[in-house]
Amino acid sequence: MTDAAAPDPSAEGLPPPDLPLPDLSSEDLPAEFALIARHFRPLAGPGALGLGDDAAVFAPPPGRELVVAADAMVEGVHFLPADPPGLVARKLLRTNLSDLAAMGAAPLGYLMTVSAPRSTPESFFAAFAAGLAADQAEFGLALLGGDTTSTPGPVSLSLTILGTVAPGRALRRNGARPGDGLWVSGTIGDGALGLLAARGEIADPDGFLAGRYHLPRPRLALGAAAVGLAHAAMDVSDGLVQDTGHLCRGAGLSAVIEAGRVPLSGPARAAGRLELCLTGGDDYELLLAVPEAAEAALSAAAASLGGVTRIGRFVAGPPQVRVLGPDGTPLALGRPGWSHFG
Amino acid sequence: MTDAAAPDPSAEGLPPPDLPLPDLSSEDLPAEFALIARHFRPLAGPGALGLGDDAAVFAPPPGRELVVAADAMVEGVHFLPADPPGLVARKLLRTNLSDLAAMGAAPLGYLMTVSAPRSTPESFFAAFAAGLAADQAEFGLALLGGDTTSTPGPVSLSLTILGTVAPGRALRRNGARPGDGLWVSGTIGDGALGLLAARGEIADPDGFLAGRYHLPRPRLALGAAAVGLAHAAMDVSDGLVQDTGHLCRGAGLSAVIEAGRVPLSGPARAAGRLELCLTGGDDYELLLAVPEAAEAALSAAAASLGGVTRIGRFVAGPPQVRVLGPDGTPLALGRPGWSHFG
Repeated sequence: MTDAAAPDPSAEGLPPPDLPLPDLSSEDLPAEFALIARHFRPLAGPGALGLGDDAAVFAPPPGRELVVAADAMVEGVHFLPADPPGLVARKLLRTNLSDLAAMGAAPLGYLMTVSAPRSTPESFFAAFAAGLAADQAEFGLALLGGDTTSTPGPVSLSLTILGTVAPGRALRRNGARPGDGLWVSGTIGDGALGLLAARGEIADPDGFLAGRYHLPRPRLALGAAAVGLAHAAMDVSDGLVQDTGHLCRGAGLSAVIEAGRVPLSGPARAAGRLELCLTGGDDYELLLAVPEAAEAALSAAAASLGGVTRIGRFVAGPPQVRVLGPDGTPLALGRPGWSHFG
Repeated sequence: MTDAAAPDPSAEGLPPPDLPLPDLSSEDLPAEFALIARHFRPLAGPGALGLGDDAAVFAPPPGRELVVAADAMVEGVHFLPADPPGLVARKLLRTNLSDLAAMGAAPLGYLMTVSAPRSTPESFFAAFAAGLAADQAEFGLALLGGDTTSTPGPVSLSLTILGTVAPGRALRRNGARPGDGLWVSGTIGDGALGLLAARGEIADPDGFLAGRYHLPRPRLALGAAAVGLAHAAMDVSDGLVQDTGHLCRGAGLSAVIEAGRVPLSGPARAAGRLELCLTGGDDYELLLAVPEAAEAALSAAAASLGGVTRIGRFVAGPPQVRVLGPDGTPLALGRPGWSHFG
């Protein structure tokens, strides 16, 4: 997208036209740039220079630290070929927003690369961009730049998100202390079950589970509220148990999860797949280490934000996660979570 | 990479260990995170939090604007399956650095996503990371974050670069004025010929052309020197004629290129493929619109930086590029440059 140049001085979000804006009709552009101009330029925010320059330029907000993260999504791995492009786009944006939420940061903007087969229909890009437009409005950020290329393989997407946080206040993964409660937002397991539902492998009468798989809810407000309350935080993307392991390694502590306390949605309870809920990915809820003194404040702050639940505790010991079943005996889990290699 | 967590408090570039650093051996990590820890964590710079958090956090340099760009590269499109992984990595980084050069910006850091088949050998990642390490040292920047995923398709890479520039001083594509000279750095066409050479389709006895294809030279120092001298700038990535068209559209001007003035390397002259040189991609030289009053200063600044050559001029008229052959008559070109779609 850094190579785009096309006409629409009236498009929202363009910087002031201190220098002449391009004024050629898109028929004069190579197809790649016309495609970018039609679908992505309307998403461009201040500083993006209409996606018509080599890079975006903007002044970072004074007195804030920058928070940056990047995630990739590949057709056939992270989404299904039949998934609606608008939902794929929104999931790509939201998984990155979830990383900002985990740091307690506020969104600023994003860059995106899209590699798609040459045969990709125009309607794919139109629906993809419409999904991004909807989420840009919902979460208050805009496109800053990117690149659009062809590929002989599956659609491959990458998004880099930029956010800001008050200096020194970002939530980290490595701050848990012995005795901290292990808390989680929302409900766990809906995403993993939703993938099965989207594949038609389990029942999902009202589409709730598939909806949770397709459209994560980044917990930005909760992450911001947890700044100063939680000792550590991360988002649950690769499975609750595996991701809890990251907090344990970060702090050099053990954690105990009481499976009976893990919050499940009604449809997840009905599915009866507890191990999958504990180890499946795609939750995009927040996992927090919270000292007892901050529990009441966190619960109060979270009450209107989907709620939080204490599911266990950090204890002194080697970095490991023990999961206790409803009867208090350890559960043996086949695998702790998702890994792309090995 | 945002999910990595692994041990090496002694690794250079880690932030001060104000909180405990992870201290598990990599055998305890899922394969994906162990791979990240082994190969990418040594590349992490200040603010990257050892690639062990959900995002990087850093204070932007005070008094500077941020410049951000992203490019994707796909195996079989932007590089050949047999290309050495270290060179692929360096080209990925350098094409993005070239975008910073085109804005007159200085590098700050980068985020990267790598999608590779599950069967990708460890040696690929080792060589890939070694290439990045070499270029990080050469260009003075470090890895801030990213993501590593599997793919059923070709290796798909994306890199987002962050740089800085003095406020209001970024070079733009849309500032050319009638009468400005059209200048280019270095030599043109080596990259496109180098691709043919790398495929064994043309002779390249000393490997010069293939070297130019594999390893662009981002013109960072020249871009910085052109700030305040050039009215407009961009990097030549999709073909000289097509990219000149972008400057024309940006300014609402015509341009005339005198083909006989376009600087060619000795091997490019010997290859005798003028049209390919004018329209092929992968040059990563700078294209500049320079007022006559600044020509001497630009030439002097460029003398030790690979040189610059005036190849034509901007003139009033509809946005188009006319290429005149050595005898002064217009050249008819088959296509102006590279487009990924259509």
